[in-house]
Amino acid sequence: MPLLRQVLGETLRSRRLGQERTLREVSGQARVSLGYLSEVERGQKEASSELLSAICDALGIELAEILDEVSLMLRLADLTEVSGTGPTRASGPVLSAAAA
Amino acid sequence: MPLLRQVLGETLRSRRLGQERTLREVSGQARVSLGYLSEVERGQKEASSELLSAICDALGIELAEILDEVSLMLRLADLTEVSGTGPTRASGPVLSAAAA
Repeated sequence: MPLLRQVLGETLRSRRLGQERTLREVSGQARVSLGYLSEVERGQKEASSELLSAICDALGIELAEILDEVSLMLRLADLTEVSGTGPTRASGPVLSAAAA
Repeated sequence: MPLLRQVLGETLRSRRLGQERTLREVSGQARVSLGYLSEVERGQKEASSELLSAICDALGIELAEILDEVSLMLRLADLTEVSGTGPTRASGPVLSAAAA
């Protein structure tokens, strides 16, 4: 299962892009540094609870809504792992045969 | 709205107590220090994503399930704030009249 900060970062990034806003705009409104927001979005830094609240406020989204989305993404990631769908299905004899 | 680490801590604590397990048992299984787990449960320390995963594993609970519960608690806290229910309702003329 992926780590919380990775899925949280992807979710925040996807919401920001959905609003067609830049890192500069959102970080400025949330009063966090642009570098910090960028690292949080890339799952490289843990967002403190205070700064996470500020980022959600800047995006105009409830924290609860973000957590719902993160929870859903975690469950989907789990399903993908269990069902074994992924890049490995494309490798092996089938590809070799097609290439021959 | 309360901070994420506070609601997360309460949720983890409530799940541990529901399993009738001690801080010592769960922290040992999660390989985190007892003091750290205690601080996380009291909302005094941010849990890193890695340690949060370890704590969930030790409790035998999916992270997604914990996040669902946290999200629900945040929404309930929001409702309570909006509806204005709380200690302030009990103060004022009603109490004075009863005491008179």
